[in-house]
Amino acid sequence: MKPLPHVVIVGGGFAGLWATRALASAPVRITLVDRGNHHLFQPLLYQVATAGLSAPDIAAPLRHILRRQKNVEVRMATVERIDAAGKRVVLDDGSSIDFDLLLLASGATHAYFGNDHWAAHAPGLKTLDDALDLRRKLLLAFERAEATHDPAEREAWLSFAIVGGGPTGVELAGTLAEIARHTLKDEFRNIDPARARVRLIEAGPRVLSSFPEALSEKARRQLEALGVEVSTGTPVADITADGYRLGDTFVPAKTVVWAAGVAASPLGRTLGVALDRAGRVPVRPDLSVPGHPDIFVAGDLAAITQDDGSPVPGVAPAAKQMGRHVAQAIRARLAGRPTTPFRYRDYGNLATIGRMAAVVDFGRLKLSGLLAWWFWLVAHVFFLIGFRNRLVVLLNWCWAYWSYQRAARIILGEDRSDTK
Amino acid sequence: MKPLPHVVIVGGGFAGLWATRALASAPVRITLVDRGNHHLFQPLLYQVATAGLSAPDIAAPLRHILRRQKNVEVRMATVERIDAAGKRVVLDDGSSIDFDLLLLASGATHAYFGNDHWAAHAPGLKTLDDALDLRRKLLLAFERAEATHDPAEREAWLSFAIVGGGPTGVELAGTLAEIARHTLKDEFRNIDPARARVRLIEAGPRVLSSFPEALSEKARRQLEALGVEVSTGTPVADITADGYRLGDTFVPAKTVVWAAGVAASPLGRTLGVALDRAGRVPVRPDLSVPGHPDIFVAGDLAAITQDDGSPVPGVAPAAKQMGRHVAQAIRARLAGRPTTPFRYRDYGNLATIGRMAAVVDFGRLKLSGLLAWWFWLVAHVFFLIGFRNRLVVLLNWCWAYWSYQRAARIILGEDRSDTK
Repeated sequence: MKPLPHVVIVGGGFAGLWATRALASAPVRITLVDRGNHHLFQPLLYQVATAGLSAPDIAAPLRHILRRQKNVEVRMATVERIDAAGKRVVLDDGSSIDFDLLLLASGATHAYFGNDHWAAHAPGLKTLDDALDLRRKLLLAFERAEATHDPAEREAWLSFAIVGGGPTGVELAGTLAEIARHTLKDEFRNIDPARARVRLIEAGPRVLSSFPEALSEKARRQLEALGVEVSTGTPVADITADGYRLGDTFVPAKTVVWAAGVAASPLGRTLGVALDRAGRVPVRPDLSVPGHPDIFVAGDLAAITQDDGSPVPGVAPAAKQMGRHVAQAIRARLAGRPTTPFRYRDYGNLATIGRMAAVVDFGRLKLSGLLAWWFWLVAHVFFLIGFRNRLVVLLNWCWAYWSYQRAARIILGEDRSDTK
Repeated sequence: MKPLPHVVIVGGGFAGLWATRALASAPVRITLVDRGNHHLFQPLLYQVATAGLSAPDIAAPLRHILRRQKNVEVRMATVERIDAAGKRVVLDDGSSIDFDLLLLASGATHAYFGNDHWAAHAPGLKTLDDALDLRRKLLLAFERAEATHDPAEREAWLSFAIVGGGPTGVELAGTLAEIARHTLKDEFRNIDPARARVRLIEAGPRVLSSFPEALSEKARRQLEALGVEVSTGTPVADITADGYRLGDTFVPAKTVVWAAGVAASPLGRTLGVALDRAGRVPVRPDLSVPGHPDIFVAGDLAAITQDDGSPVPGVAPAAKQMGRHVAQAIRARLAGRPTTPFRYRDYGNLATIGRMAAVVDFGRLKLSGLLAWWFWLVAHVFFLIGFRNRLVVLLNWCWAYWSYQRAARIILGEDRSDTK
């Protein structure tokens, strides 16, 4: 008997996991490779960073999700490069995995646009470990402010900046302002956490630029109502251990968070094809790599435009759709049928801002404020994987709503930052 | 107006926190110093290590617990030594805190009895960071076993040893056997996790030696029913990165956990008084330090005997009682009244073994098995601090009972072990 074709899927995010599941009944053997042991529900990662949720609340072991899908083997391993000509995936321990068909869905990472030295002072948010590091950094800042006797130093510890006014930046800024003003109330004796300065810095003309202008404006007003200073139109010129420079002004701030940009996973470079400016792989309409019909790219690493010429956005629904499309293309390829072009179906766009505030854009239906927040909450909890996670997350939210408290305000791990 | 006397409390565990609360209405200023930002419910720490609970489920920020007690300032700082003569607590940044009265309640840490080089291969379990490290180590062992092609190496990755047959060792061994046999079922393709060897090694003649012999025997039988090999009467002779030696036999095992012994916090040594063999401070009947009537010691760091000559055990109820007693002694001292001797009230002893199995010893009432487990569950959830934690923990337990699943099987942080 001929062995079944071997499909290797790199990355257990939305694209990789949805492709894997869609191949459940296909006549293939699948190996799913991921650096971590879990699928991460990235849209709620900022909640772990801001101590609202525990890390396991928004993640589930890949093995567990796929335990009943017998044609999949899950490998926890780090991929070093793709050997496209040799049709194998090379791991960091030097071993390799041969493939007949490959889906590369290794996503994106932070990008500092040529200012990589900012990374040490302005960490980003992509993994659970990032989120726990950021949580420690945010909570420790208030501790340091309480402990110091130097007024200037105290002010610097109570000065926070979030660089980047996209959904992640807006969520972080809104939640941080809420923590300072409500959650930490009455807990300190030498500082008033409510006097913390939370600044959201967007280089472009408005926050949430992927939303219609009216909603951007509403988001700005909701942020300001929560106590966030919104700065638009000027990019950050420098970030150091002690603060940041905006235009000609240096602002002391011990805590700067990077939410300004992502670059595609470096594995794209190892394919040996031309990449776009963000390092993404421009794929053919069926999501295969030009010149390599057996290699597909999906999710944040894939560059593809919609019929109107706009790029398919780097959001979870797009990644899931691409993952499912690749599964379909693989089935077609194996059956000798032609593949079809990928079409992104845009169901809408939502972003949360903080307690009871959000914006929702579903084309004709545009919402902001409390109703949008409820919409956001239901959608996010619904899409969380696993019955138990949903329950725990809902419970946490009810608790947070009722008490203004955040359930995970525990400082874990050592402080490895330069600003100890 | 004369300033209020300054009481410094070192350690936010059961002794320190209970003393702080008991001084809520006393005419004192209190500074509570802890290395972490949280009070930890240590009796459930093994559940975090074995992926049943998230770290924040069993911890709460000290500031939050004490936010309404206006006579307390919480300081997150590491104490380096006590300057008993100078009546000040010296921090690791060189600064110091003067006290009028001191409670030293810095607890205990792992002890390797002169074999400190074992620490790298057999980590212990005292803090939340220890628990997350251990969780990673346990979960990674199964990943490594799945990935290797070498049968001997695979066997070593599937060989686990817990050194120490006290409550923590028994809890860890029972839960680990349950994970191997039930939780991970169907999730691997190259190994059968149920074939993992879980060995509990006790140097003394029986496990749970603080319980009556009949309950020790029941615990042994319940452990064996869960699949744990129980070895008694022989101490571990050596531990390396590749396994352990028991008598003349070297047993390959990549994962060895240390639950065999604790030593008192090294801060006791800096008091300049004679310590007992375990490094604890032999205190006077009112829990003050001989020669230093203004310094008290409580919890695991205090050595004190009961009327029958047996030592007060190092358990949470004893620490709480000591903490409250020190608060009383401080009030008496300030009021010019004589202090009273501490008397430990032993309400009983309970230990859990695994799914639905536990032993309970309340003097005349002795239970084992399912009924004891329910008893254990109710007692532990009841004593957890915080309404929300109790609900989440109960929910997790219901979920675990119903599904055999464990909610926190997420590998966090980097693998810094020598056995990568």
